[in-house]
Amino acid sequence: MAFHPKKLINDPKDAVTEYIEGLVETYPGLQHLDGFPEVKVVLRADVSPQTYDKVAVISGGGSGHEPAHAGYVGEGMLTAAICGDVFASPTVDAILAGIRAVTGPMGCLLVVTNYTGDRLNFGLAAEQAKSEGYKVETVIVGDDCALPPRRGIVGRRGLAGTVLVNKIAGAAASAGLSLSDVAAEAKCASEMIGTMGVGLSVCTIPGQVTSDRLGPEKMELGLGIHGETGAAVADIQPVDVIVSHVLQQILSPETGYVPITRGNRVVLLVNGLGGTPLMELMIAAGKAVPKLQLEHGLAVDRVYTGSFMTSLDMAGFSLTIMKSEESVLKYLDAPTRAPHWPVAVDGIRPFAKIPVAMPSSNTTKGDESISRPPELTEQARLLELTIEAAANSIIQLRDSLNEWDGKVGDGDCGSTMYKGATAILEDLKTYYPLNDTAETISEIGSSLRRVMGGTSGIIYVIFCKAAYAQLKSNGKTEISAKQWAETLEAAIDAVSKYGGARAGFRTMLDALIPASTALKERLDAGDDPLNAFVLSSEAALAGAESTMHMEAQAGRSSYISADTLSVVPDPGAMAVATWYRAAALALKDHCSAE
Amino acid sequence: MAFHPKKLINDPKDAVTEYIEGLVETYPGLQHLDGFPEVKVVLRADVSPQTYDKVAVISGGGSGHEPAHAGYVGEGMLTAAICGDVFASPTVDAILAGIRAVTGPMGCLLVVTNYTGDRLNFGLAAEQAKSEGYKVETVIVGDDCALPPRRGIVGRRGLAGTVLVNKIAGAAASAGLSLSDVAAEAKCASEMIGTMGVGLSVCTIPGQVTSDRLGPEKMELGLGIHGETGAAVADIQPVDVIVSHVLQQILSPETGYVPITRGNRVVLLVNGLGGTPLMELMIAAGKAVPKLQLEHGLAVDRVYTGSFMTSLDMAGFSLTIMKSEESVLKYLDAPTRAPHWPVAVDGIRPFAKIPVAMPSSNTTKGDESISRPPELTEQARLLELTIEAAANSIIQLRDSLNEWDGKVGDGDCGSTMYKGATAILEDLKTYYPLNDTAETISEIGSSLRRVMGGTSGIIYVIFCKAAYAQLKSNGKTEISAKQWAETLEAAIDAVSKYGGARAGFRTMLDALIPASTALKERLDAGDDPLNAFVLSSEAALAGAESTMHMEAQAGRSSYISADTLSVVPDPGAMAVATWYRAAALALKDHCSAE
Repeated sequence: MAFHPKKLINDPKDAVTEYIEGLVETYPGLQHLDGFPEVKVVLRADVSPQTYDKVAVISGGGSGHEPAHAGYVGEGMLTAAICGDVFASPTVDAILAGIRAVTGPMGCLLVVTNYTGDRLNFGLAAEQAKSEGYKVETVIVGDDCALPPRRGIVGRRGLAGTVLVNKIAGAAASAGLSLSDVAAEAKCASEMIGTMGVGLSVCTIPGQVTSDRLGPEKMELGLGIHGETGAAVADIQPVDVIVSHVLQQILSPETGYVPITRGNRVVLLVNGLGGTPLMELMIAAGKAVPKLQLEHGLAVDRVYTGSFMTSLDMAGFSLTIMKSEESVLKYLDAPTRAPHWPVAVDGIRPFAKIPVAMPSSNTTKGDESISRPPELTEQARLLELTIEAAANSIIQLRDSLNEWDGKVGDGDCGSTMYKGATAILEDLKTYYPLNDTAETISEIGSSLRRVMGGTSGIIYVIFCKAAYAQLKSNGKTEISAKQWAETLEAAIDAVSKYGGARAGFRTMLDALIPASTALKERLDAGDDPLNAFVLSSEAALAGAESTMHMEAQAGRSSYISADTLSVVPDPGAMAVATWYRAAALALKDHCSAE
Repeated sequence: MAFHPKKLINDPKDAVTEYIEGLVETYPGLQHLDGFPEVKVVLRADVSPQTYDKVAVISGGGSGHEPAHAGYVGEGMLTAAICGDVFASPTVDAILAGIRAVTGPMGCLLVVTNYTGDRLNFGLAAEQAKSEGYKVETVIVGDDCALPPRRGIVGRRGLAGTVLVNKIAGAAASAGLSLSDVAAEAKCASEMIGTMGVGLSVCTIPGQVTSDRLGPEKMELGLGIHGETGAAVADIQPVDVIVSHVLQQILSPETGYVPITRGNRVVLLVNGLGGTPLMELMIAAGKAVPKLQLEHGLAVDRVYTGSFMTSLDMAGFSLTIMKSEESVLKYLDAPTRAPHWPVAVDGIRPFAKIPVAMPSSNTTKGDESISRPPELTEQARLLELTIEAAANSIIQLRDSLNEWDGKVGDGDCGSTMYKGATAILEDLKTYYPLNDTAETISEIGSSLRRVMGGTSGIIYVIFCKAAYAQLKSNGKTEISAKQWAETLEAAIDAVSKYGGARAGFRTMLDALIPASTALKERLDAGDDPLNAFVLSSEAALAGAESTMHMEAQAGRSSYISADTLSVVPDPGAMAVATWYRAAALALKDHCSAE
């Protein structure tokens, strides 16, 4: 299986220069040398060799490992990064140009990943620069722990650990250390680091055909960062198992790659290879820390998790362990303007994080208030009969609602509403605190939340909770007609805001909004509250019926053709109109009967 | 084509909780609520609701968009993030728990992406929190510009623009603004933002089978962040064309999604969807900026490029354009401890960046010095005959070198060395400044650099340049035998350092190192320099021949079996021994003849 890779590029041969152009557009503190296409050098915009009074720290190598290395240019880390073509070492001329562009009287340190091409090109540039009178030191980083040690330095590739060396060197230079001291810090750091990578896919090189040599069930262990084959192929395992294996390899006392033993303090770097989501990297980090602590007896001082040194879009990750000391932490924690050095990692890490206890509800009402009072007030009796009438009307409307909804939705509107109405009638008898109207409405919401699933359920709960909050804000037990109108308005606002619909969207709002408008109008006109309520309920019904002529703008019905819609009203709107009108008529009948 | 996705996870149902555990391990300033698996809330470790005197800013939604939203928790941005399962809205209980955990007397702002589930769950939690006495405001972000405007707010999904709204709200809250003012800033910002996404692949949901509906040559335009199908499918284009199209759609005066017109200032956010390498995002950024400036007449104040709001591992990106004003920039630039808010983006951006001119070489030598002097000193004549002898010996050895190399390498050692020797002989006649030994050796390096490719070429150049630097450091024209010995040592050190080999690695060092050791020994013992040189050259030859019994540790030969290797010496070592011995003998013959 081979396919032409889809990439967000223009001409593959321009990919690296266009990358650099985008990089300097993004970060005002970065610049590049006027040397495309041969010389691809990113440098600090604020450094000129004549006046620079710190040791310059320069790194680089093939491109395709972004953000390495150009993303680490900035005060406190790299002074310049030399970029080669994708997975190809930069030329001696490019490296020399970079050295000349940022090296002042304090000299420069070259931090070089251990690949033959990089070693030789940086090496020749270093020797050339020295012959031009520059003070130059070089530190070569080979942190790979995948290959048997007998292969010597050639087998130890430079991997993600290079980023830590660059940070330490950059911070040491920024602190004003001399070239030999900066080089000594970098060299010491490079000898304390071990890295091993795991790949789940190959990477896609711009302009090349990719072959998936791994297939759907394999992973490669111990791989480099240039898409080369790993040291071993194995069946994919849970990340728990992979992390254990990789840590074991890095810390193995037999190979002795890193001078780390039980009781030491370490820094952990979890590095994504480009195509692995942050979620998975964090899962690996979350597993690696306790394993380091409990299985290897190491204290973990810092955890860096992200994509720091990638292989284009390869899926996979590497783990890097570095021995940590106060002096190392000081350099790692030192501030930097480098855009891609991770922030917010510094600070004391507890051995284990105890999660924060869940805070309890802030409400002052005790449990005792949620029960049906032995004696009902007059207002409570009215509230009860209104609720009963509203709920019963919905129970009777079940089949019609289901029928309408079967044409424009999923056909369960009646059944869902029936569940809610039945629950309300039951809870009403047992525990609604009817003498407190606001609390009763809140409890209606709780009943509905318990039994009604889906969007319509939650919208009714929001309606009740918003009504409750509005009624509560009045701070009185007696509720005036005007306050009822304001409560209806507040509840409608909440439904519109969170539900995302407005008038004319063919939803329950097309019953509620006309009802609210009519109620307010009639009350403002000085009508008797009971009459106003009844007129309002007529407006609700008219509004609900008018939905037959509306196009759906929200919810499932928005995918149904207008022809189908025009023969049925919106079931949600009809449900509202029905219970609202039943409530109004029940109240009127009761009052006229008295 | 459908395949089981390879993911670095354990059990898919634990992915989000394990992600959060890794996140809080990485960032000491973050904590989570003790509510797994139902309640997945990340919050600032330093905030307790009793004492928090700022407006809390809370966002969240389904997981799978990492670093959104939990990665934006920190002073100056979010106070808490509520995480749902992958691509699923968090529950009302989780949101309520988050509100209760961080909301103090100043209240809280909920920033909600415009999806039905998020709107309703955050909405109900908001109403419930209000009924518990909390001050709560909600701002809903719908920045999508892909779907026709007639669908109303439901059609405008919340995309990467939400990250900018969160930063602005967080900075406003951090500045001490009241809840209504923070909400007003956030709402104003949300109305200034447009986003459109382009996908090259579908994403891989943990525990699910992925189907590649796009195939190898298509892209989807106008997509959301939950793996849903885009508004249109098209053939993949160069990123230049894609960027133009997307900017046109966002800024279209016909749809009027964003109130941005020519002459305005804007902020650009280039967002990777998870599986796209930073290189490609930067290429898109580098193309978008001049297009905004030149084609749309907009000034670009800030560029944010990275993976801010992803769809797991989807390949693709989105562009977000936001109208910018001084007040907006102030909030965007304000410092934050949120780990994933991009750094080093603030600061004045020039309209166009003029690349830094390439600095020229620092050397003081003028061109005139690089020519053969009319009169040769005695030392220059000795130098010339030594160089001639050495070069001629390599010319004669060509076929043997090729033959040995054919067995252990790629068979061109002799041809490559022959090219170098020929070039030296030619340049020697015309321009080597023979009266200056150091400069002559530097020029030998230049000749070799011009004609010899590959590793061996560059190693010889490094050898010459290091020798030159060492000779120069003496600062005298007369070179003592001891200084020659030191020069040889320095050149060997450079080759070993940059070439990565040591004694016994079956390389040219196995001739050079014995030669250097013998030379030093004989001189220290008080031998005549000429004799010491000849003895040293015998050591070189013995060393080179002994490579026959060495296993290769570096270079191409390290992949050849020991059996094959044992019948031939290392050609590189033999070449060194040959020219070195020829030089010594020539010098001795000349001096005894005189």
